[in-house]
Amino acid sequence: MRRRYRKIDLPVSDVRRYLEPGPIVLVSSAWRGETNIMTMGWHTVMEFVPSLVGCVIAGSNHSFELVRRSGECVINLPTTALTEEVVGIGNATGAAVDKFDNFKLTADPAERVAAPLIRECHTHLECKLVDRSLIERYNFFILEVVKAHVAATPKYPKTLHYTGDDVFMVSGKIISRRAQFRPEML
Amino acid sequence: MRRRYRKIDLPVSDVRRYLEPGPIVLVSSAWRGETNIMTMGWHTVMEFVPSLVGCVIAGSNHSFELVRRSGECVINLPTTALTEEVVGIGNATGAAVDKFDNFKLTADPAERVAAPLIRECHTHLECKLVDRSLIERYNFFILEVVKAHVAATPKYPKTLHYTGDDVFMVSGKIISRRAQFRPEML
Repeated sequence: MRRRYRKIDLPVSDVRRYLEPGPIVLVSSAWRGETNIMTMGWHTVMEFVPSLVGCVIAGSNHSFELVRRSGECVINLPTTALTEEVVGIGNATGAAVDKFDNFKLTADPAERVAAPLIRECHTHLECKLVDRSLIERYNFFILEVVKAHVAATPKYPKTLHYTGDDVFMVSGKIISRRAQFRPEML
Repeated sequence: MRRRYRKIDLPVSDVRRYLEPGPIVLVSSAWRGETNIMTMGWHTVMEFVPSLVGCVIAGSNHSFELVRRSGECVINLPTTALTEEVVGIGNATGAAVDKFDNFKLTADPAERVAAPLIRECHTHLECKLVDRSLIERYNFFILEVVKAHVAATPKYPKTLHYTGDDVFMVSGKIISRRAQFRPEML
């Protein structure tokens, strides 16, 4: 069941919290009046400050040109409430359908980029494309997160993690090692 | 509790199965008789064929020079049976301790690289460094998986996913969308 989230600002240096566990994300983009959404599982945090994320967008994907030309996108974090939408978006191409309309998702305006936020998602990371040097060779985009919004609750959303073969892992229990862990070493 | 795994070969084009869900991994390396192990959470699959993985190894990490100089490493997948070892390795530096000895882990010989496999892990990906162009700027290593070993069971291991703030998410239930999912679109 979908829920309404109250969103608050997240420092951009803290986005690893939501990306490093490796969830499937929905990337929204816009170019010359056209918008699109794609599913993405190949991404990694690259730096805290500036807040960098690297990701692969296959050249065959309709979003590839929208992100490349506009130099912007939003990384949105869906929870298990959007499982069917994630699967459906992964199966559709933006060349043929309007994904916001088709999947009844709401496009909210972002603050720093023209690409829309997907309101029903838990987290939104507004991104600028800052390094194009590996796009041609690997379809690898290096993005800087310039603005981040996150749902005030839940603190640890139930996320989807793709394993291939049409199978997802759902995020499970949370364990803390605060007493012994020195995160600066990770 | 630790267990003994029976390992089988995994096609290198299939490693996304274990990496794409985003687990913390243990990277083993060797250079001139010295070995080391580091924890790593910043990695992404980049291509199926060749089997490419991109990852960040901070310049301050003792493993940075071992991987850069040898041009090789092994990505090992620990399960929750090794939670304390993962935390301990993240807190120690290889400049001061022998991590295999200190954490009672077993170094097995790899087939294609000089870096050792960590026997107690579920999966081993033997990797060659194939692109150094982003190391200086981002500490970003592009690796090709040249040989992969995986435990015959369990098929979906319980893995650790780091969120920062000394907190891990443990992989949870598995859901299949085989009937409706077209993986070539992802």
